Amino acid sequence: MEKLQEIRTYLEENGIDAALVTTPDNVFYLSGFNSEPHERLLAVAVFRDADPFIIAPKMELPDVKAAGWTDEAVGHEDTDDAWMIVERAIRGRGITPSRIAIEKSHMSVERYERLKELYPDAAFTGLDSKLNAMRNIKDEAELEKLRKAAELADYAIEVGCREIAEGKTELEILTAIEFEMKKKGVSHMSFDTMVLSGKKTASPHGTPGDRKIQKGDFILFDLGVVWEGYCSDITRTVAFGEPTEEMRNIYETVKRAEEAAVAAVKPGVRAMDLDKAARDVITDAGYGEYFTHRLGHGLGISVHEFPSLHGSNEMELQEGMVFTIEPGIYHPDITGVRIEDDVVVTADGVEVLTKFPKELQIIK
Amino acid sequence: MEKLQEIRTYLEENGIDAALVTTPDNVFYLSGFNSEPHERLLAVAVFRDADPFIIAPKMELPDVKAAGWTDEAVGHEDTDDAWMIVERAIRGRGITPSRIAIEKSHMSVERYERLKELYPDAAFTGLDSKLNAMRNIKDEAELEKLRKAAELADYAIEVGCREIAEGKTELEILTAIEFEMKKKGVSHMSFDTMVLSGKKTASPHGTPGDRKIQKGDFILFDLGVVWEGYCSDITRTVAFGEPTEEMRNIYETVKRAEEAAVAAVKPGVRAMDLDKAARDVITDAGYGEYFTHRLGHGLGISVHEFPSLHGSNEMELQEGMVFTIEPGIYHPDITGVRIEDDVVVTADGVEVLTKFPKELQIIK
Repeated sequence: MEKLQEIRTYLEENGIDAALVTTPDNVFYLSGFNSEPHERLLAVAVFRDADPFIIAPKMELPDVKAAGWTDEAVGHEDTDDAWMIVERAIRGRGITPSRIAIEKSHMSVERYERLKELYPDAAFTGLDSKLNAMRNIKDEAELEKLRKAAELADYAIEVGCREIAEGKTELEILTAIEFEMKKKGVSHMSFDTMVLSGKKTASPHGTPGDRKIQKGDFILFDLGVVWEGYCSDITRTVAFGEPTEEMRNIYETVKRAEEAAVAAVKPGVRAMDLDKAARDVITDAGYGEYFTHRLGHGLGISVHEFPSLHGSNEMELQEGMVFTIEPGIYHPDITGVRIEDDVVVTADGVEVLTKFPKELQIIK
Repeated sequence: MEKLQEIRTYLEENGIDAALVTTPDNVFYLSGFNSEPHERLLAVAVFRDADPFIIAPKMELPDVKAAGWTDEAVGHEDTDDAWMIVERAIRGRGITPSRIAIEKSHMSVERYERLKELYPDAAFTGLDSKLNAMRNIKDEAELEKLRKAAELADYAIEVGCREIAEGKTELEILTAIEFEMKKKGVSHMSFDTMVLSGKKTASPHGTPGDRKIQKGDFILFDLGVVWEGYCSDITRTVAFGEPTEEMRNIYETVKRAEEAAVAAVKPGVRAMDLDKAARDVITDAGYGEYFTHRLGHGLGISVHEFPSLHGSNEMELQEGMVFTIEPGIYHPDITGVRIEDDVVVTADGVEVLTKFPKELQIIK
């Protein structure tokens, strides 16, 4: 696989003999095998001068192969000392590593001490920033999954709108959405689905409940699905019956802010500039104090990953980055509105993955 | 709090100056504050010779206090170096720790290296086994939450049975259960709810889907809720219409096995003896090869914690331990049946937390 080759090249360039990748997200990223092994050992081992291997609980080996892993796959059982099996697999490659890369921000001290026992003369270095940098730029296969996850999120919003009716509760609408997603083969939402109505829309982290929706409410949907290991995250705010003039004004302001940020996306632009593009629209309209969070966050295997789109991030956008753009206005006395899309930085601009209309939907 | 005092006593007895507890589950256990801070620092610091403190993201400090924390609570913002704030709070106590206890099975190498920079002369020791031992024995306040979580799980099974009707799918029944739980104020199930029917019951880790239930099916529910941070986990298998003689025989075998294990629970009995009590019943009935997993697992803040009830665990039960008892028979050509209760070891026997009837329920 290309990604394993990129790690290998990194090891060559940095004089590192071996890398051990142990976080489930990164194991999935490198191997295609998606699993949460809890306290059991699951690791991808990559070498400068030898072929990689994966070590996984023995009962999961068929799934490792089904996921497309073609290099060696080593199993261990609960009665085994998994680290001795790792050591043996490395020794079998004729390697005694003197520099080993690990994910320092994730590997536990216990595992680290075990590794140091096995390789007392080795130096340990971090692989975290290399992996973060790789995951920051999505390849075409990843984009395909993100597109499909976004398409399902669009459909979820459509279902939510269809379910809106006088007297239904937020939880009833939420349940109908998640049920429909399950029927589409979605085994997990990417986070707790949010359906908020009326003044509750003004809380960026509100909890859906038994409130019955009423004519005149804005209804805010914030949701996403996991599709083949990749996440989507969409927000739409729709009207149930005619909104007031001020609600419309808030809606149109958020819409213009969101569109301004989307339009500004291209390689070389700084993350902070996108935040400013949206924030300026909201501030100019007099609602600046009610836009209380950053513009967005990276999206991929994790629903919150790099890059972070906030007002002091000078990082320049690059082709292949994927993130959310989600400005909002949360006015406690009137309403909350948030509009959120998932976007990809392309060679000369932007591809918007989520496509549900942003014109204010008024549901009769 | 008593638990903090117990840690402090442990530090005294072992000549340790300070303990830093950083896993969210254990922070909750010691402080009452339940939060997933992701990459942000959340820690409880306990000292042999000074008062404890908690460090948390500043915006969460009101929640820390609302959770009942009465000692010092220190906040940090994203622009702060949280570890410098920890160092200052420790220095402010007149302490330069020379022995520090950490959770070695969880603390990352990155954080560990940071701590070693701050305290280059300190020795680091593990607090994991002490915390595991404490969490292994539940106090009355914890039992109250576990009882309530079990009561809600009982009700969820009741809802599931009520929803059974010709032509309904597994997912429809599952959705109805989870919706009803949400209405009861349950924000999270303790794991993915399982509703399996027909031959699918023979897969211990099956996935609910679009299969329509039919007369003659066994329907297996495996589910649990989180209530005030504590988990329940129940399994019941019920019949839709009249089961065959062999299905009844399998059901009654599992029921006798489950009841035999429950009846054997009391202080001093070994975990392996419980497993054997159930396994012997199933083996004697000729189904031994179809009981393919351990008898059960500990239950508390985590849905899988200590103790593990398997055939080679010689650990003796103690008053206050809480775990599941869940034997099953998975016969691929006939049906699967599992019955699971949550139990507490009492001074002279057992308290069964889950109370949904175990007599075979036949739904017409």
